[in-house]
Amino acid sequence: MNGKILIVGAGAIGGFYGALLARAGAEVSVVCRSDYDYVSRHGFQIDSHELGCWQFRPAQVLRQACEYQDSADYLILCSKVVAGIDRVNLIRAGLTAETAIAFIQNGVDIESELLAAFPDRVLISGLAYICCNRVAPGHIKHLAYGKLTLGALTPDDAGLSQRLRDLCAAGGGDCEISRDIVASRWQKCVWNAPFNPLSVLSGGLATQAILQSQEGFVRDIMHEICRIAAASGHPLPYDTVELNIERTRHMPPYKTSMLLDFEQGRPMETEAILGNAVRAAQRLNLECPRLQSLYALMRLRELQISQS
Amino acid sequence: MNGKILIVGAGAIGGFYGALLARAGAEVSVVCRSDYDYVSRHGFQIDSHELGCWQFRPAQVLRQACEYQDSADYLILCSKVVAGIDRVNLIRAGLTAETAIAFIQNGVDIESELLAAFPDRVLISGLAYICCNRVAPGHIKHLAYGKLTLGALTPDDAGLSQRLRDLCAAGGGDCEISRDIVASRWQKCVWNAPFNPLSVLSGGLATQAILQSQEGFVRDIMHEICRIAAASGHPLPYDTVELNIERTRHMPPYKTSMLLDFEQGRPMETEAILGNAVRAAQRLNLECPRLQSLYALMRLRELQISQS
Repeated sequence: MNGKILIVGAGAIGGFYGALLARAGAEVSVVCRSDYDYVSRHGFQIDSHELGCWQFRPAQVLRQACEYQDSADYLILCSKVVAGIDRVNLIRAGLTAETAIAFIQNGVDIESELLAAFPDRVLISGLAYICCNRVAPGHIKHLAYGKLTLGALTPDDAGLSQRLRDLCAAGGGDCEISRDIVASRWQKCVWNAPFNPLSVLSGGLATQAILQSQEGFVRDIMHEICRIAAASGHPLPYDTVELNIERTRHMPPYKTSMLLDFEQGRPMETEAILGNAVRAAQRLNLECPRLQSLYALMRLRELQISQS
Repeated sequence: MNGKILIVGAGAIGGFYGALLARAGAEVSVVCRSDYDYVSRHGFQIDSHELGCWQFRPAQVLRQACEYQDSADYLILCSKVVAGIDRVNLIRAGLTAETAIAFIQNGVDIESELLAAFPDRVLISGLAYICCNRVAPGHIKHLAYGKLTLGALTPDDAGLSQRLRDLCAAGGGDCEISRDIVASRWQKCVWNAPFNPLSVLSGGLATQAILQSQEGFVRDIMHEICRIAAASGHPLPYDTVELNIERTRHMPPYKTSMLLDFEQGRPMETEAILGNAVRAAQRLNLECPRLQSLYALMRLRELQISQS
């Protein structure tokens, strides 16, 4: 028995990791909204240079978590963290007493609402370092990377993080446990904080063009995130900025997730990535003028979208 | 004799002030590129709530300054300050030995190229505090304000700034002499530096919406300009930021000139307004992270436009 898993929010990220876990032998069901009709008939098609191409037929395809007819070992929340999505209500009805909650989501300081709602449950915080896009209903293209970083938010997780890691690895995924998942979240923000908003505010540039044109500015933004992380008790390795710059230089030109959301008229993760970072800095009495600038500009961009 | 004037770059600003000077009795000719055909046949139509509506028929309508068949007392340059426009070559052929040069243009640190090219001539630096738009060929709508600030860049201007001011005032214009026109230029930049780029980067918000949503950010940007002005020897009055905020609050919602340029696919005054301010700060070893952010973002936006 490799466990039962319910993925809530099976877009590109949820579909991809669900497919990996199913390949490892887990019984994976999915809640998906926009692609429900297609996925319930045809399942997912995953195309990956690194991992091959395969079909993923979920055990159950559901519109809402309350329709789940089983008891999951893990509920994995993969929705975006945006205004208008109530993460607690999205998952509550899919849980039984034994279900551990994992979430694979972007942003910093996004744990508290789940910790408050589910204080007695194992909570696993997850970060996907991956380039993968939904190119059509149920069709996910995995472009590069794929490392999943997991870390329990509760001191004792009864080995559940490790078990989920092993499952993912058995499916061919690159998965690791972080001893300080909050630091890992800041570390991911080092990349997201510049490239996500710059791709939108520039009107659609890919990562390569942004880096080639404004490397100094990108580095300055990254350093602001590093300073906030350190001041909040999660210092990042000294070469974090350098590694992120190098990684981006050798990535294929990539449209960020925020840019894809923007182009498709979906809400963007402005608050989870920028707003929460700026608010953390304010609580710590730390200056972060470049992040504040990006945040103010994204708010203006969103205001303009809401008016048009 | 009220003098002969050649306006080079008769768009909204050049057409409007040319029309004021003609109304005062000056013999005003214009060089205009894009509206040449229309203006040479019909002249300009000026519509202004404050100053009334009137026709302005230039003495000569020209495609280039070298076609001017007369000797001007003043050549007034009103083009935008953007890459690809060589201001010196634009005006050289329109000058005789007696012609004073005035320029009514946005931006800071834009004097040096004219001072270097015309060291022995009276040079008058001018700033238009005005909301006026070209709504159709030869048709200029004056929405609000209109103050023209003039100041000689040469210690002795033989009364030529004052004479130009008097002419403008005789035409109904609000015109004043600045004893420190370089400071006046920084003062205008206090408004331009936030509102011009924010209107473009937000995707098209008018000034009111920007101010209502992000007043704190707008103020921070304005303070950065004030600090650069002070460090460069041109301290602005202590209430500059407050006055600019109040003025904007009571303006009608306004599309900035940079937004109009952006929407019409014309080059934007990014370097004259932001680039020169950031470079001045760098020479003075001054931090201006918000201006740097706006400048980097405008450069990315322009890169994206050039690629599409």
